[in-house]
Amino acid sequence: MSMRTHYCGLTTEALLDQTVSLCGWVHRRRDHGGVIFIDLRDREGLVQIVCNPEEAEVFKNAEVVRNEFCLRITGVVRNRPDGTVNNNLNSGKIEVLAHTLEVLNASVTPPFQLDDDNLSETTRLTHRVLDLRRPQMQNNLRLRYKVTMEVRKFLDANGFIDIETPMLTKSTPEGARDYLVPSRVNAGHFFALPQSPQLFKQLLMVANFDRYYQIVKCFRDEDLRADRQPEFTQIDCETSFMSEQEIRDMFEGMIRLVFKNALDIDLPNPFPVMDFATAMALYGSDKPDMRVKLEFTDLTEVMKDVDFKVFAGAANMENGRVVGLRVPGGAAMPRSEIDAYTQFVAIYGARGLAYIKVNEKAKGRDGLQSPIVKNLHDAALTQILVQTGAEDGDLIFFGADKAKIVNDAIGALRVKIGHSEFGKKVGLFDDTWRPLWVVDFPMFEYDEAGDRWSACHHPFTAPKDGHEDYLETDPGKCIAKAYDMVLNGWELGGGSIRIHRAEVQSKVFRALKIDAEEAQLKFGFLLDALQYGAPPHGGLAFGLDRIVTMMTGAESIRDVIAFPKTQRAQCLLTQAPSAVEEKQLKELHIRLRAPEAKVVS
Amino acid sequence: MSMRTHYCGLTTEALLDQTVSLCGWVHRRRDHGGVIFIDLRDREGLVQIVCNPEEAEVFKNAEVVRNEFCLRITGVVRNRPDGTVNNNLNSGKIEVLAHTLEVLNASVTPPFQLDDDNLSETTRLTHRVLDLRRPQMQNNLRLRYKVTMEVRKFLDANGFIDIETPMLTKSTPEGARDYLVPSRVNAGHFFALPQSPQLFKQLLMVANFDRYYQIVKCFRDEDLRADRQPEFTQIDCETSFMSEQEIRDMFEGMIRLVFKNALDIDLPNPFPVMDFATAMALYGSDKPDMRVKLEFTDLTEVMKDVDFKVFAGAANMENGRVVGLRVPGGAAMPRSEIDAYTQFVAIYGARGLAYIKVNEKAKGRDGLQSPIVKNLHDAALTQILVQTGAEDGDLIFFGADKAKIVNDAIGALRVKIGHSEFGKKVGLFDDTWRPLWVVDFPMFEYDEAGDRWSACHHPFTAPKDGHEDYLETDPGKCIAKAYDMVLNGWELGGGSIRIHRAEVQSKVFRALKIDAEEAQLKFGFLLDALQYGAPPHGGLAFGLDRIVTMMTGAESIRDVIAFPKTQRAQCLLTQAPSAVEEKQLKELHIRLRAPEAKVVS
Repeated sequence: MSMRTHYCGLTTEALLDQTVSLCGWVHRRRDHGGVIFIDLRDREGLVQIVCNPEEAEVFKNAEVVRNEFCLRITGVVRNRPDGTVNNNLNSGKIEVLAHTLEVLNASVTPPFQLDDDNLSETTRLTHRVLDLRRPQMQNNLRLRYKVTMEVRKFLDANGFIDIETPMLTKSTPEGARDYLVPSRVNAGHFFALPQSPQLFKQLLMVANFDRYYQIVKCFRDEDLRADRQPEFTQIDCETSFMSEQEIRDMFEGMIRLVFKNALDIDLPNPFPVMDFATAMALYGSDKPDMRVKLEFTDLTEVMKDVDFKVFAGAANMENGRVVGLRVPGGAAMPRSEIDAYTQFVAIYGARGLAYIKVNEKAKGRDGLQSPIVKNLHDAALTQILVQTGAEDGDLIFFGADKAKIVNDAIGALRVKIGHSEFGKKVGLFDDTWRPLWVVDFPMFEYDEAGDRWSACHHPFTAPKDGHEDYLETDPGKCIAKAYDMVLNGWELGGGSIRIHRAEVQSKVFRALKIDAEEAQLKFGFLLDALQYGAPPHGGLAFGLDRIVTMMTGAESIRDVIAFPKTQRAQCLLTQAPSAVEEKQLKELHIRLRAPEAKVVS
Repeated sequence: MSMRTHYCGLTTEALLDQTVSLCGWVHRRRDHGGVIFIDLRDREGLVQIVCNPEEAEVFKNAEVVRNEFCLRITGVVRNRPDGTVNNNLNSGKIEVLAHTLEVLNASVTPPFQLDDDNLSETTRLTHRVLDLRRPQMQNNLRLRYKVTMEVRKFLDANGFIDIETPMLTKSTPEGARDYLVPSRVNAGHFFALPQSPQLFKQLLMVANFDRYYQIVKCFRDEDLRADRQPEFTQIDCETSFMSEQEIRDMFEGMIRLVFKNALDIDLPNPFPVMDFATAMALYGSDKPDMRVKLEFTDLTEVMKDVDFKVFAGAANMENGRVVGLRVPGGAAMPRSEIDAYTQFVAIYGARGLAYIKVNEKAKGRDGLQSPIVKNLHDAALTQILVQTGAEDGDLIFFGADKAKIVNDAIGALRVKIGHSEFGKKVGLFDDTWRPLWVVDFPMFEYDEAGDRWSACHHPFTAPKDGHEDYLETDPGKCIAKAYDMVLNGWELGGGSIRIHRAEVQSKVFRALKIDAEEAQLKFGFLLDALQYGAPPHGGLAFGLDRIVTMMTGAESIRDVIAFPKTQRAQCLLTQAPSAVEEKQLKELHIRLRAPEAKVVS
């Protein structure tokens, strides 16, 4: 007989009266009326084992087992007695009467209960192996696997080929910081771990593979925010000879299929499409959470000549913006909540949060409650009411500052209110899945610090048809064939049509003030490849960690990664990174910079 | 209409009279009777495009195109004229009469013809993108994909879950050299790139994932031999609660399925199994090429008292060995060939290659032709003939030295003769697929230099049942639950049952002279995990690059990797590794060791 004939969690009444051999962990043990009951757990779930005193050997062994002991049991499947059926379990109609019980391995007492939901993340990451035994983590990683398998099946069916690209590659220091790997054979030289396989996938298109994908680790040595990891996983895709529209159709089909097959969720078909300019105008964000039923009203023009200096100043500033955010029913909001929001927007650089409560429109100025109405002339007040569409009982928040601050602050406020108790109560939040394509991104954004244009997406993105001339005449007007897939306020993925002609690529480098020599040094192999009949091509990359985090409802991407790093980029389980031997450094032709560098900061 | 409606290579008579839109590269262009014919190529193959002078625009465009131009063509599928059908092509019955021809991208003249089979590897790797367009490379990488997809389907159907393990992990300097990654956040500390996910997959078993797999990059900073790469890909698998036999059955089933579905090859069922001792005795190798029908005959005992010093010396030496290799029909081998073999075995340290030609057995000593028979007494000669089973016309080669030299030299000679013209002609080579399991490896081998035992497999391998006591009493006698899958002289993969009890793991560390403190420092997290009811588990890892190299018949694993490194661990395409900016090193708290280190050696 095999060590195991069935999974515990899949042992059901279909096996009635059969002898089975089960392996798993003691989830709970209890003595009841002289009989020992063991809930035995494996990855598929629990099953109840009954150890009778009549089976002396079994009973003796059962007496010593404790939680998390690893057991092998053979026994016969029988119906549970009336009244003891547990419909929450797959195996809940049956129990297994043990004939043998073998302790495969004992366990010391775990540092925490597996069903404890209040563990600190430090405890969980230090004892990750036990943490991973918890049902939630089991589910998260199995769902992650299911997602990747559905992705692979979809892409396979559509002719995409998984091709591996190098992990030890060339450092091109721009965008994020590279992780470097010193070379032993080539003294003084370094590999870089890839931030993405962008250039390689383009080369594969030039090399006629036609459709490529890879579920691949990427690396960025950045200071970690809540949802970043030094190494993360991309679903990276590229195709030749498809239009932007065809690519978007293909990949929203993929995401729809994944949600359907992994979670039985029907996403809308098709996904709505919104251009970047509209998204910024209405939501102050290029990844708006469409579940929140609140929109900006742009009041920049209206405020140019009001007495209220904060509004007029912003309205007349270069890159200034004034917006109103109408909150239906918001007039009922207590002052304390408004104060809390004022503090909240300060995080995003807003220096205050003006508001008007619309108590009774018909009364005009007197029906409005606000510290600022006295500094707004009648025409402005009228325009505010007309343009926001405010009704009695509403509240209007205002943002006025540089556009970036307004967008960030009021954009965040919009989401905050939508997700609040209040927002949910008054119907400002539509608790469902609201995907969206955001398209027509600008090619460039102006980097004031560096006094130059930088690429919004990356420098290999193609300009929209007809916009090529702007590359030289007016880069700010140049729109890119770039697209992001957004879901409930998260960017799931993004991509673009790439430049396939060497002369256009050179123009973009010029616009970015990358001179020919630098371009050749960094991207010579791409420019070279484009010369040999490079095909029109494009693609996109999805953040797998993020998709699975959304799908599982996990709080952090660390909950969908088996062995994640902390925000200090450390692995608490293995204690990586760690000191290494001097001999190793010598072989790599490097030394530590200073003695104090040895101290962990 | 889409940019493309069909693949060139899949445009067949099924589409007769339909208008199609095709995209691809000019493989060949020829003018014939005032008509221009273009063989248009995409990843699926070629199709013939006809450009008539009547279509003035098409014809004008067709006149300027050259090899490797990227085109889009719309036209109508029609039968080829009688006598011009090409049965070598999928599309050979039809051609497409072009109505539009658009040059999507021009191409400069490629540095070589895509059908040139005599390109140097330097040329190929420098212009890798064009090299990858060649049909052989297209086939290799598509077969590689097919193999991985078959593997994934098989493992999915058997309940294995793909779980990602970290790329940035802890350096445990033993076995091969680690690639190190300096940490920016933790000054003076380093990550290591994984040599394999061995410990993580064991942790996943302790964490109750039950069945794990990953097709994953691994890294070893070794001096590269012909078939090594700094980064290589493993099919890495692990399972709980299965016996060695069950694991082997499972994975030979996987390999059988892959060969069947990817190449329509039926491998034997079941694979033969041979223990390590037998493999060494008969073939001097733990990965014998079973296609070669030659075996060693051990003559160590026979030679202990002969006059011939070379034989007697080896036979009486500690760890000495004398073997004969009978080559049926080998007496016909000319002296020049024997001399060449003598030089060949010298590579492996053999100081000569004695032989006996058996001309006429019946004549006894006089029927044997050899410089050495005069120093061998009659009883020895008789035993040689009896034990090797030599017949008239055979030749017997001899190896006599330390066992390692004999095994290496005569083992290599065996393969060399088997693969030679002679060997194939006289039927010593069975040109088929001959898989084999080699099992029952020793746990340890004695490292004379270090005067200590080292692990043959790795220190997490379980001893065979009943051999645990040898760990302390006689490590050399201890056999491991380890197994290698061998095919035609290549190790495809290998694995073992792991130690799942902390006390056994400690014993193995003691046998290896790894003290408790060192064990805790390096493997503390594993020892810790084993305490919490670690299940019995085991697994194996296959070398994907090697499997695909064998399946494609490629000469090097570099031919089944899209962007490989040279033997100097460089990427000729991107010029990685390369110098980096001082600022980057500063951020990583390292500096180059010496000014001259900057010079590429």
